[in-house]
Amino acid sequence: MQKKILLTICYNGAAYCGYQVQPNGVTVQEMLNKAAEALFGYPCDVVGCSRTDSGVHARGFCATVTKKGECFLQTSIPAVRIPRAMNAHLPEDISVLSAEEVPLDFHARYGVESKEYEYLIYNGRERNPFFEGRAWHIPTPIDGAALAAMQAAAAHFVGKQDFSAFRAVGADTAPKDAVRHVMSATVTRKGDLISFRVRADGFLYNMVRIMVGTLAAVAAGRMTPEDVLRVLREKDRTKAGSTAPACGLYLDRVTYRN
Amino acid sequence: MQKKILLTICYNGAAYCGYQVQPNGVTVQEMLNKAAEALFGYPCDVVGCSRTDSGVHARGFCATVTKKGECFLQTSIPAVRIPRAMNAHLPEDISVLSAEEVPLDFHARYGVESKEYEYLIYNGRERNPFFEGRAWHIPTPIDGAALAAMQAAAAHFVGKQDFSAFRAVGADTAPKDAVRHVMSATVTRKGDLISFRVRADGFLYNMVRIMVGTLAAVAAGRMTPEDVLRVLREKDRTKAGSTAPACGLYLDRVTYRN
Repeated sequence: MQKKILLTICYNGAAYCGYQVQPNGVTVQEMLNKAAEALFGYPCDVVGCSRTDSGVHARGFCATVTKKGECFLQTSIPAVRIPRAMNAHLPEDISVLSAEEVPLDFHARYGVESKEYEYLIYNGRERNPFFEGRAWHIPTPIDGAALAAMQAAAAHFVGKQDFSAFRAVGADTAPKDAVRHVMSATVTRKGDLISFRVRADGFLYNMVRIMVGTLAAVAAGRMTPEDVLRVLREKDRTKAGSTAPACGLYLDRVTYRN
Repeated sequence: MQKKILLTICYNGAAYCGYQVQPNGVTVQEMLNKAAEALFGYPCDVVGCSRTDSGVHARGFCATVTKKGECFLQTSIPAVRIPRAMNAHLPEDISVLSAEEVPLDFHARYGVESKEYEYLIYNGRERNPFFEGRAWHIPTPIDGAALAAMQAAAAHFVGKQDFSAFRAVGADTAPKDAVRHVMSATVTRKGDLISFRVRADGFLYNMVRIMVGTLAAVAAGRMTPEDVLRVLREKDRTKAGSTAPACGLYLDRVTYRN
């Protein structure tokens, strides 16, 4: 009956101050902790794979649920029934998509092998009700050449390198090591929607959003793809683009070691 | 300075009692009339290509804007500037995407050559915050064979035929003639999202939603694709499937004669 459960969670982050519990605002973790307590009958800890910022979304966020202060859950509810049972206690903007049993020593955060984010840019001239709060609206048309420049710039993100220039300054929890391994970084377009997908073994604070702000600078002709290489080498945050808004960012997929 | 302007409009219909002005509820047309009046400085009529039901969405709804009681607009604002100017007076869930000048005798409704709707079914097991109010959630898995049956059934909708079985009963404004020409009707799947697209020279009241309810009955094995042929022939509404919910329906595209 002692088991550890890994949840895959989808949420629209618009109404939340990010994932992690904090004193000054409602967070996704707080809602999940409450739903788990309502379901299992005792205080629970829903430990996430990552912190996400205020307003950031997730389609495949991973988190373990355990009894508070323990590394396990005491329950006879089969894993397959947990999603619907937890969803009965969650608001419409958070949904547990699936649940599976994992070893008791599994850690949702330290066991992460890679994370994949998608960032959506809506490039229609006028605002679109269906992308309101779900994409960054850049009304200036991005033509084929500008898109190709974004693609060339994104390719420079790939590799194991120092991303100091793509980390928010003053992040008090910043780890000293800014080397990350970006496995893929691609820009595609479908109609008015431009998608930036990036997968890495880890991300620095605001890293994806600064990457996107930089790609937007490339699209606007204020930077060249080669400038991105230079910025990476110089490791100076002020040389990279601005931080793109949170509403376009989606944590899409998490993989674990083993 | 006398001109008639055709608008292309996108709206999330969740908050509205359909398109057309009515006494008991806020409609999309009412919001557009008010925005046009605020912009042009006199009462306006925004005449739509179609009525849409409460909760139905549109990505490419067409409507003309004229001075109330006249067939023209008196303005020096160039058409290209109208979308942004009107959007300044519209809520977030309605957006004018584009505007163009049309002849004074152009009629947004009677001039329609064809309309294309998309209906979205979300087929994930658990609810998804991003499709809440934007797709019909059918949690029972629709497998490859069931999808193929939906596709075969949809093919039977194509052609110039009598759709009496696919019209809401008791629709007091129902025209006697129930013959419509369906040019295309296709079902495709991408991940958990199933899309039904249908284009026709006109649609009866609730026609697309009854088609989708029927396709859902086929997916569930309660009807066969051949049953759809029989239902069309028998012209009996009670033999077709139920009316699918409004939230999955999008008016996507309108074409005009000439």
